[in-house]
Amino acid sequence: MRAELISVGTELLLGEIVNTNTKYLSEKMALLGVNVFHHSAVGDNRERIIQTLDTAAKRAEIMIITGGLGPTGDDLTKEALADYLQLPLEMNELEAAKIKDFFQRRGLLCCENNLKQAFFIPQSTILPNDLGTAPGMIYQDKGKSYILLPGPPKEMQHMFQVYVIPWLNEKVIPSGTLGLYSHVLKFLGISESQLEVSLQDLFDQQQTPTLALLAQAGYIHLRLTARAQNKEDFQTIIEPLVQEIYQRVGKYLVATDEMTLVETLAEMLKKRNLTISTAESCTGGLFSSYLTSVPGASQYYLGSIIAYSNELKTKLLAIPAEIITLHGAVSEEVALMMAKNVRELTQSDLGIGITGIAGPDGGTAQKPVGLVYVALDTDKVKECSAVYFKGDRDTIRQRAVFIAENLLRKYLKDEIK
Amino acid sequence: MRAELISVGTELLLGEIVNTNTKYLSEKMALLGVNVFHHSAVGDNRERIIQTLDTAAKRAEIMIITGGLGPTGDDLTKEALADYLQLPLEMNELEAAKIKDFFQRRGLLCCENNLKQAFFIPQSTILPNDLGTAPGMIYQDKGKSYILLPGPPKEMQHMFQVYVIPWLNEKVIPSGTLGLYSHVLKFLGISESQLEVSLQDLFDQQQTPTLALLAQAGYIHLRLTARAQNKEDFQTIIEPLVQEIYQRVGKYLVATDEMTLVETLAEMLKKRNLTISTAESCTGGLFSSYLTSVPGASQYYLGSIIAYSNELKTKLLAIPAEIITLHGAVSEEVALMMAKNVRELTQSDLGIGITGIAGPDGGTAQKPVGLVYVALDTDKVKECSAVYFKGDRDTIRQRAVFIAENLLRKYLKDEIK
Repeated sequence: MRAELISVGTELLLGEIVNTNTKYLSEKMALLGVNVFHHSAVGDNRERIIQTLDTAAKRAEIMIITGGLGPTGDDLTKEALADYLQLPLEMNELEAAKIKDFFQRRGLLCCENNLKQAFFIPQSTILPNDLGTAPGMIYQDKGKSYILLPGPPKEMQHMFQVYVIPWLNEKVIPSGTLGLYSHVLKFLGISESQLEVSLQDLFDQQQTPTLALLAQAGYIHLRLTARAQNKEDFQTIIEPLVQEIYQRVGKYLVATDEMTLVETLAEMLKKRNLTISTAESCTGGLFSSYLTSVPGASQYYLGSIIAYSNELKTKLLAIPAEIITLHGAVSEEVALMMAKNVRELTQSDLGIGITGIAGPDGGTAQKPVGLVYVALDTDKVKECSAVYFKGDRDTIRQRAVFIAENLLRKYLKDEIK
Repeated sequence: MRAELISVGTELLLGEIVNTNTKYLSEKMALLGVNVFHHSAVGDNRERIIQTLDTAAKRAEIMIITGGLGPTGDDLTKEALADYLQLPLEMNELEAAKIKDFFQRRGLLCCENNLKQAFFIPQSTILPNDLGTAPGMIYQDKGKSYILLPGPPKEMQHMFQVYVIPWLNEKVIPSGTLGLYSHVLKFLGISESQLEVSLQDLFDQQQTPTLALLAQAGYIHLRLTARAQNKEDFQTIIEPLVQEIYQRVGKYLVATDEMTLVETLAEMLKKRNLTISTAESCTGGLFSSYLTSVPGASQYYLGSIIAYSNELKTKLLAIPAEIITLHGAVSEEVALMMAKNVRELTQSDLGIGITGIAGPDGGTAQKPVGLVYVALDTDKVKECSAVYFKGDRDTIRQRAVFIAENLLRKYLKDEIK
């Protein structure tokens, strides 16, 4: 069983937005055991939508088409599908009433063009849109299924989860089909090719699970993929291989699956009953927002002082003005003192201090844009990493957080004592 | 002149990562005046890469292929292109030496498989990779250009900007080609169809610039697109239409282009010489990190107190424990007091207080997960918005920041006095 994902919208072809729908749908289709071999994106152009449908229908059985179901004149997906299949679109009274009601309840005006959304191919399955106004539609023809979903990600995801998955399981996917499960191991501190060489025999022998490498956002991903009845069976299948990999390169393994490094750190902090606080300058609360992004953060996270101006570094964090004058606000001395003082102020077990020059202005020859000091303070350890990054403001701030995470990870793994 | 973007990588078809390369390249190609009518993604499968190249070459003159240039066995893009064109791949000694040097300088081991990256189709143009090891390649054949770029976004973007754009302008794009420029107006508080109706005659008459609507991440985008020699000419072309739109629906316009709401706010704060500080609980520094994401933030941003635990709300923000006991930490009283006290503590002009229940735990019948109070305090105004969001932790925190931004916007536009 093969599926093809078609994204409709000129905004995609002009680079106005990032296409996140294909990531979501690809993941879900893999778990349903359906192969996705192609993604296509096409603009709001009836002729080219029809061509794209035709290409897809020649190589897949399930076409999932997102976008172009809205109320405006350049929303053309249903029209193009009807043309392609040489079928009419007819108004559904019930759906028309629902759309009117949606607007009424929100105190908004329902325009005539909104009723365009109540037109469907006869005999199609209408998919309710619980989070918006554009309903979806499924039409089956000659062994092919055309599934039309709205473009806004939250509406699309909800509709897919609640209405499309049960429909696919009932109507299209043979019972007993094994899902394609993946488990991703994320490594740091080892290159992609070194990792491949360390696991060369496993790559050579691979059958089930299969292995694949990918450099991604600072990590090296190792993906293990296998077909299984359910998640538990999948875990049993991959367990011996995961163990073997862990034996060889476990030292570099920092996170798994959707789990990010900060979630791994949160687990470790909870397990060891440690609390943390941060004092941030150039990152302006970014590290703190990461630490609090994890459910249950109150178990380990107490609070932070964001001292952006030098005056506030002195007033809120008790960094003597003379120290700032002597060493500069961006210095090892200040970073260490920030970490120590915020720890004492909040009475946390661990304190992190971050100070640097995120740019684009404010750099000097001695202290260029991209220079960042990240310090860790505990009752036993005082450690500071000085790092220098090339990149824009956003990159420098993200990298500084990454350094802080890694410093924390090393401490929690007893690599810093 | 037409281009097609082809993304190679099974990780895309499994939904392991979001494809951001197509957004970047689409935007750049539009500005170069080249039409992008299709995006395609395909897995690490030689046969299907060849088929995808063939489909693209039948409908476009420029094929930009990202991904699959890495050192590992499933990196197949160059091999597939060579197969498709029936040409060999040959090692380039100079590139091989560069790769060895790259590893040596970083103290990493250069594996034999890294040298795979030094193989190219003879007579192709080699594109240096200044940020990684996989070089790119351009090959021209029978009026078609095949441009191969690495998958990691930073490497790809740098290579495209520095090497591919000059090459395209010199070799492929006719001089005098007009770029396709876009200007995006972002609206809040008006529905997509209401906006269309308000501008119906403009939509009906549209020729140059063209207009398009899109609901995106809480905003309604209105995109104006026109061909022009350069950005200045484009702005002259769209100016009358922008003015007309502003006359009719300017009230709902909150941001433009890549500019986010926070950047608009930063401009307004700078212009009015106002400083701001925040006191955050559930958002854990997220609003502060937004405020400091804008270059030159030190002109308006002083600092923040992130008080996650109730003890720290009392200790750092001087919220009396009795007030917290009486009203709860998530209450209008506490939000207002957080805003006022952080403003006094940092001596800023504006103080923002945010307290809420981001979940998934911690909700009660009276105060469910998703309830957030956002307060603004100035010497004249004390204003608090109580809002309730459905969604996951991340959504609730993002929305809370959005409410804070909007409260700030209203104040800066003198809508709150």
